[in-house]
Amino acid sequence: MIPVEVTRRGLLGAVGAGLGAGLLAGGAAGAATATAIAGRGAGAAGDPAAAVAFHGAHQAGIVTPAQDRLHFASFDLMPTADRADVIALLQAWSAAAARMTQGLDVSETGAVGGPPLAPPEDTGEALGLPPSNLTITFGFGPGLFADADGVDRYGLAARRPAALQPLPSFAFDLLEAPISGGDLAIQACANDPQVAVHAIRNLTRIAFGTAMLRWAQLGFGRTSSTSTGQQTPRNLFGYKDGTANIMAEDAGALAEHVWVAAGDDPAADWLAGGAYLVTRRIAMTIENWDRLPLAEQDDIVGRDKRDGAPLSGGGEFTTPDFDVRRTDGAAAIPATSHLRLAHEHTSGTRILRRGYNYVDGANALGQLDAGLFFMSYQRSPEQFIAVQRSLATDAMNEYIRHQSSALFAVPPGARGDGDWVGSTLFA
Amino acid sequence: MIPVEVTRRGLLGAVGAGLGAGLLAGGAAGAATATAIAGRGAGAAGDPAAAVAFHGAHQAGIVTPAQDRLHFASFDLMPTADRADVIALLQAWSAAAARMTQGLDVSETGAVGGPPLAPPEDTGEALGLPPSNLTITFGFGPGLFADADGVDRYGLAARRPAALQPLPSFAFDLLEAPISGGDLAIQACANDPQVAVHAIRNLTRIAFGTAMLRWAQLGFGRTSSTSTGQQTPRNLFGYKDGTANIMAEDAGALAEHVWVAAGDDPAADWLAGGAYLVTRRIAMTIENWDRLPLAEQDDIVGRDKRDGAPLSGGGEFTTPDFDVRRTDGAAAIPATSHLRLAHEHTSGTRILRRGYNYVDGANALGQLDAGLFFMSYQRSPEQFIAVQRSLATDAMNEYIRHQSSALFAVPPGARGDGDWVGSTLFA
Repeated sequence: MIPVEVTRRGLLGAVGAGLGAGLLAGGAAGAATATAIAGRGAGAAGDPAAAVAFHGAHQAGIVTPAQDRLHFASFDLMPTADRADVIALLQAWSAAAARMTQGLDVSETGAVGGPPLAPPEDTGEALGLPPSNLTITFGFGPGLFADADGVDRYGLAARRPAALQPLPSFAFDLLEAPISGGDLAIQACANDPQVAVHAIRNLTRIAFGTAMLRWAQLGFGRTSSTSTGQQTPRNLFGYKDGTANIMAEDAGALAEHVWVAAGDDPAADWLAGGAYLVTRRIAMTIENWDRLPLAEQDDIVGRDKRDGAPLSGGGEFTTPDFDVRRTDGAAAIPATSHLRLAHEHTSGTRILRRGYNYVDGANALGQLDAGLFFMSYQRSPEQFIAVQRSLATDAMNEYIRHQSSALFAVPPGARGDGDWVGSTLFA
Repeated sequence: MIPVEVTRRGLLGAVGAGLGAGLLAGGAAGAATATAIAGRGAGAAGDPAAAVAFHGAHQAGIVTPAQDRLHFASFDLMPTADRADVIALLQAWSAAAARMTQGLDVSETGAVGGPPLAPPEDTGEALGLPPSNLTITFGFGPGLFADADGVDRYGLAARRPAALQPLPSFAFDLLEAPISGGDLAIQACANDPQVAVHAIRNLTRIAFGTAMLRWAQLGFGRTSSTSTGQQTPRNLFGYKDGTANIMAEDAGALAEHVWVAAGDDPAADWLAGGAYLVTRRIAMTIENWDRLPLAEQDDIVGRDKRDGAPLSGGGEFTTPDFDVRRTDGAAAIPATSHLRLAHEHTSGTRILRRGYNYVDGANALGQLDAGLFFMSYQRSPEQFIAVQRSLATDAMNEYIRHQSSALFAVPPGARGDGDWVGSTLFA
């Protein structure tokens, strides 16, 4: 993380003086994995306007302290794009991401430094804004390895991770194809929505002719400036969400549950140091939920709404005790509660969640179009599948609808300015 | 503005000790108009987590320094609602708004203080969050005075402001009825989107049976924690937007252009101290815009993209000189530029703009669904109509689409806990 605050405006001058992104990013690169630690529950530490290094062994935006805002985008590769086009796109994306995450325009001439008779290379809405902890994380969908007809468009079939298959159907799936899947994905997180939007917009622009935006989702979570950093944010059911998440300081849990290791899949060793990303747009029927008695809400979640403590007692971070019974003999944490079914105790596994709340206006029934854009990072899709299958009897299912689903292989990080995200796959 | 930071959590205890919203709001009420000054261009001053007084001569949220985030909602009154229902709704809305703007739950028992076998009165997602400068501003649409068939449902026809008529059609209108109009409106602005969403959600819930959500829009602007407060934010065309706005410190301009004065409309003196609000969802075809040469973008806007200076020269806040000509004889600020046509110089009037950028995912053409949710407050709708008519030849029209439109009469503020927004109309 760069200690000094630099604005895009200020750096325009620095670029002119020969102090470009390379120098800045180079100085910060080695610190990427060391500083970008702390999970959702731990809160975004430090300056919400500062820069997060783009380069590192892992991509930023996975164990980086969760920023306030999300702009996620999924892309389809165009029928005419060939292997060289895809490589060129990924190289251009990495170069642009390395600049934008440091608070720079997308290119050296940027929004206002180019010739007046040419379209600007940067769209300009982030001029003057600081880096805002922007992270840009790239993912590869199954379509990169085989299109809908099974054609290996880019000569990558032999390197396809065995686990990178369309997710199975789950109970209560109501998926809409136009907002599911995708060949490539970008997660942009920042403490300023304008900075995240600027990133997705400019990366979409760079992709023109090679990949086209398929669907996108904005989301919000904590607010650095107005929230206590250490508090676990609440979802739109009003409950603290992420208490039992994998903490980024827990290197053992990250190695066991999040990062793909060399040897996990011999055909896909290019993915070592990466992870699998699952996204699910989960609409919440909040008007129905809001009519439930508080005690029933607690029973469905398995936690106390006030402080997030498990219903077995204690405080928010007390380990749930699934054997505790009420005086009437019933399990304190009910058998159909979300906590019990999602927890490693029942599902047998753990995942790193990084979801954001969303509200996309109103629906035709006069209800808020609201819910959770769920994102989880894990070493294998099987972990998500195990958790989701465990949730088949979750009492919460009555109040949610899974509308979109996608799976991406998230490569390791780019090691420096000469490297790019995806280089290990196309090597 | 309350000087100390209080969280919803902290105040739950204070309420129990008899220090409820009334005391807090009462202490702050007198300061409402004195502290809630500074326009869009001046930036949100002070603590982004603090409270803004709900009570005052004017409603908050009009000249209050623009907060970072918007959740706007428009409502239809239900066919079965009668005058007493509408009065009860407005009273309940004011009481809830007075609490929520001070960082309190929507009611005394709130999210977790009620009986376990009853649905909570507050939905809970803002538990533990500070007031975050939340303002809640109520507006009345033409439908409150006459429904689509001209029926005076609530005995208010004689008090209808003469100017509260559906807006005329404008060049390039492409309005969609389901996201236009409405009988009642609420503008919730806060520095934390979760706080703004919580406000709209709970007010929507209170309205159940009397009014139903018709449409809603979220938006974003500056970010207090990561932006320089004094900078004019940029719109999604990449230009500073709001430079020539009415400044809230300019009491003379507010009196002349924003606040309805006693005697403006003798039948509607209840509106004195209020204003008219126009909302327009203006989609931007940003992909087309981004292909324009920088010089052409500048000519369309009438300003320099880098610093926002008018093309007649100077800096951002230099008064435009519409008589300046280039060496080739052409007007420096072109005849079809947005600046020239929107400016008082051409339109003959001024309005107080309070818009927010929005991005609502992607459209079916692989483009960002993005634009400006325009909001303006003015003493008479004629001011907006004059500006919008002046813009008929605006070169920018090629890159925007007006998708939604609404007009509301915004009553004066509630004077204290015994008062409510709308009391002057129903008196």
